[in-house]
Amino acid sequence: MTYQDVPPSLNLLSNEIIGLAIKVHKALGPGLLESSYKECLFYEISRAGYFAEKEKTLPLIYETVKLDVGYRIDILVENKLVIEVKAVDALADIHTAQVLTYLKLSGNRLGLLINFNVTLLKKWNRAAGNRTLCPLCKELCVLCGKKQLMKFRNFKMVGYVVYGRGSFNQVDEIIAPHRKEGKPMVFLVDHFFEGKPLVSRIPLRGNDSIIFADVTYEPKTTYVDKLAQQLKEEFGTVSGVIGIGGGSTMDLAKAVSLMMNNPGSSADYQGWDLVKYPGVYKAGIPTLSGTGAEVSRTTVLTGPTKKLGMNSDFTPFDQIVLDPELTKEAPANQRFYTGMDCYIHCIESLEGTYLNEFSKSYGEKALQLCRDVFVNKEHWDDDCDDKLMMASYAGGMSIAYSQVGVAHAVSYGLSYLLGTKHGIGNCIVMNHLEEYYPAGVKEFKYMVEKNKIDIPTGICKGLTEEDFEKMINVSMGMKPLWENALGKDWEKIMTREKLRALYEKL
Amino acid sequence: MTYQDVPPSLNLLSNEIIGLAIKVHKALGPGLLESSYKECLFYEISRAGYFAEKEKTLPLIYETVKLDVGYRIDILVENKLVIEVKAVDALADIHTAQVLTYLKLSGNRLGLLINFNVTLLKKWNRAAGNRTLCPLCKELCVLCGKKQLMKFRNFKMVGYVVYGRGSFNQVDEIIAPHRKEGKPMVFLVDHFFEGKPLVSRIPLRGNDSIIFADVTYEPKTTYVDKLAQQLKEEFGTVSGVIGIGGGSTMDLAKAVSLMMNNPGSSADYQGWDLVKYPGVYKAGIPTLSGTGAEVSRTTVLTGPTKKLGMNSDFTPFDQIVLDPELTKEAPANQRFYTGMDCYIHCIESLEGTYLNEFSKSYGEKALQLCRDVFVNKEHWDDDCDDKLMMASYAGGMSIAYSQVGVAHAVSYGLSYLLGTKHGIGNCIVMNHLEEYYPAGVKEFKYMVEKNKIDIPTGICKGLTEEDFEKMINVSMGMKPLWENALGKDWEKIMTREKLRALYEKL
Repeated sequence: MTYQDVPPSLNLLSNEIIGLAIKVHKALGPGLLESSYKECLFYEISRAGYFAEKEKTLPLIYETVKLDVGYRIDILVENKLVIEVKAVDALADIHTAQVLTYLKLSGNRLGLLINFNVTLLKKWNRAAGNRTLCPLCKELCVLCGKKQLMKFRNFKMVGYVVYGRGSFNQVDEIIAPHRKEGKPMVFLVDHFFEGKPLVSRIPLRGNDSIIFADVTYEPKTTYVDKLAQQLKEEFGTVSGVIGIGGGSTMDLAKAVSLMMNNPGSSADYQGWDLVKYPGVYKAGIPTLSGTGAEVSRTTVLTGPTKKLGMNSDFTPFDQIVLDPELTKEAPANQRFYTGMDCYIHCIESLEGTYLNEFSKSYGEKALQLCRDVFVNKEHWDDDCDDKLMMASYAGGMSIAYSQVGVAHAVSYGLSYLLGTKHGIGNCIVMNHLEEYYPAGVKEFKYMVEKNKIDIPTGICKGLTEEDFEKMINVSMGMKPLWENALGKDWEKIMTREKLRALYEKL
Repeated sequence: MTYQDVPPSLNLLSNEIIGLAIKVHKALGPGLLESSYKECLFYEISRAGYFAEKEKTLPLIYETVKLDVGYRIDILVENKLVIEVKAVDALADIHTAQVLTYLKLSGNRLGLLINFNVTLLKKWNRAAGNRTLCPLCKELCVLCGKKQLMKFRNFKMVGYVVYGRGSFNQVDEIIAPHRKEGKPMVFLVDHFFEGKPLVSRIPLRGNDSIIFADVTYEPKTTYVDKLAQQLKEEFGTVSGVIGIGGGSTMDLAKAVSLMMNNPGSSADYQGWDLVKYPGVYKAGIPTLSGTGAEVSRTTVLTGPTKKLGMNSDFTPFDQIVLDPELTKEAPANQRFYTGMDCYIHCIESLEGTYLNEFSKSYGEKALQLCRDVFVNKEHWDDDCDDKLMMASYAGGMSIAYSQVGVAHAVSYGLSYLLGTKHGIGNCIVMNHLEEYYPAGVKEFKYMVEKNKIDIPTGICKGLTEEDFEKMINVSMGMKPLWENALGKDWEKIMTREKLRALYEKL
């Protein structure tokens, strides 16, 4: 819709609010913290007699439960005007996308994206007068709720990739240009490696430090906050954070890097595009293959109220070092579950309805590599490590334009209620999905048998009626996953009764 | 080797030169152009009675011919001490790599990497006193020729990738955050599109401009310089350069972007890691699939003395937009030759001796996609465009750790002598390489026939003895290609006589 399409009353309201914003800017000037502008604008709006809500939570995407909510509207006026307050050097398209998302999810038609960190009030007035509707206006933006969000995701890539047996030996040279005088490189290392030879190969210099991270459970926001706080207290800031370990360690390293430069708690940033500033330099060195965390745009964290990633363009690593020698010592069980993370993801996305050729190419390659390793090979050798590392990378890349499916939707209920880890949870569910992925499940079972893995059974025994209801609610809430797997009419196929029966089998 | 391993005479020499460098720095201070320091240091060294050579060209890698030379030693003293002069904010590992490369290729043992753009002379003295041997020294570096170069290339990725039919419609939103007040986005568009509907879809704003680029021949350094100069004169600088077209247009856009921020002529930067500063924002939008230029780290240019890329970490695009709809209108012949660029590359690298699993995974996927399109499909459809675009992307990525082979080595001679374009040249040669790639050539011929393409023949008829000698010299100079194809003893397999016979067949 054009500016003319905005209903007159909404138009008047937005005019009034723009006036108040200019008033606030005149009073405060640029250069303050975002929160100051937000508070003052909220005060002005309320004083002007409008009904305004601050930090309004958006119950979103997953309709039946409020579990995964990561969105908050800065100020919502009269239940119809969305205001997003920024104090940044320059607005980016991600800010626009954020407001458009809020509009779409909240069902509202008009939003104001206001950047208070500008110096020329004259420009402001011009912008206010013109009421520019396009995302190119750098000072003040009136956005229209009917404007389409970008149809195809613009995928942020990791900065540098090095792949090779022994490439770990290059880490010293690779990170050298990112060292800042007096500020250490911090190596976050999976505690599995404590006392192992790999540790002595870490290229420590000056006041660099190694922190052995406990990744028995998936990383918690409190743990991330504690680590970042500790580093801030000891060093002020650090040159970089280097994660060495499995998927959880990768996630931890990404999150700690971000929290070195973003205020508050990591729980504040669980959701889409909430991270405000780039983190410190961050590099990922995986020692387990399959999660794809080394290339992903998210870092999954368990917070006080939700398990959700800090999904942002600032999240991907600046550098990844893919050295297949490092996965050699992984315990066979763990290696299998993590490899299956990749395999199951590929099956789900390749059989799904959301695919395009980009994700298909990567997904097919990852799947083929998993097959080479877990089906065709007679015993584990170097080639398996080489291939599985590429499978993980390709699987991670394929996520760009694909979505997972039934196994993930169901296993999400397990991990919510029982704390079941992601890799095992997917395997437990996959074991019973013949109906949805007949060929994939057959091959999966063959791989389980061939690699002599025992998949746990009977994990839902003794659960109460209430427990089952909880799991079903959580699982049914994963709407995009179900839709990807079963199409738009998925609710006719996957009823609560049917899902209940599936859980009882696990 | 450690500092102690340096022969005493060389040691004394380097001490002396460090003293002269400090003298120059004391006289000039920081903040001047690199060339000033270089001139003065050269003057001081010569005056001190040493035999010094400035801008010494390195006859490199390709042993028999000097064609591809892109390296120049800033100052070479007494034929044994390599000096690289910089005036940058901070030395990066790329500078170290540069000096180590020069040492390796020139067969020398000691190099000085001197950054004159430092303010504290005290630090200098300390560094000179300590004669630090590591690449972490930010002020002055004495580098040892035995130090290994990084074994595995650290591959710089493009910043953002968007893939999807119709993703061209998102260009406006994608480039919006990169616009700078008053500075245009410049769209470099293949002149093939002049007057075509695509042009009206280019999201022009403000003083944006479209330049139709003549890419009948591969881009010349003079053309790049002219375009950059023209933009500088008209706008001072630009917000960004967006290339829309085939491989040559991609290369042109990358080169013009770099030349907006680097002084002199693009011919000065033909070679490895010679580019000094990042370019302006640059995005690539391919309309022909197969070259892989959209993801590569180089931009091939024909200069006054050589045809060679500006191969640097600053070269890859910040953004690529992969919209398969845009390749729909490409002429069938051109589409085929460009697709074969990808296919032949894959055959050469997959059959080569330089491969690792990273390049293998990408190469296999690209090959399979080429087969899907040119072998398995009955007629051209949307799916072919989708797949060939991914083949090009994957083929480009596979270059990271692989090398081409016989077809490229031989066709390089053709393009040097006859100006034959890359895509066609490779096809002409591939047609006669049964001995080296039996399965690949068989499939290639099948594709030629099936797609009803006429490969030119008899192009070497009437060439003089001297012409053949020239082509053979050029081709035999491509040592890494031959070694990749035929192994370390390639010269026993590919003799000059045998190569002559091959050229006569073409």
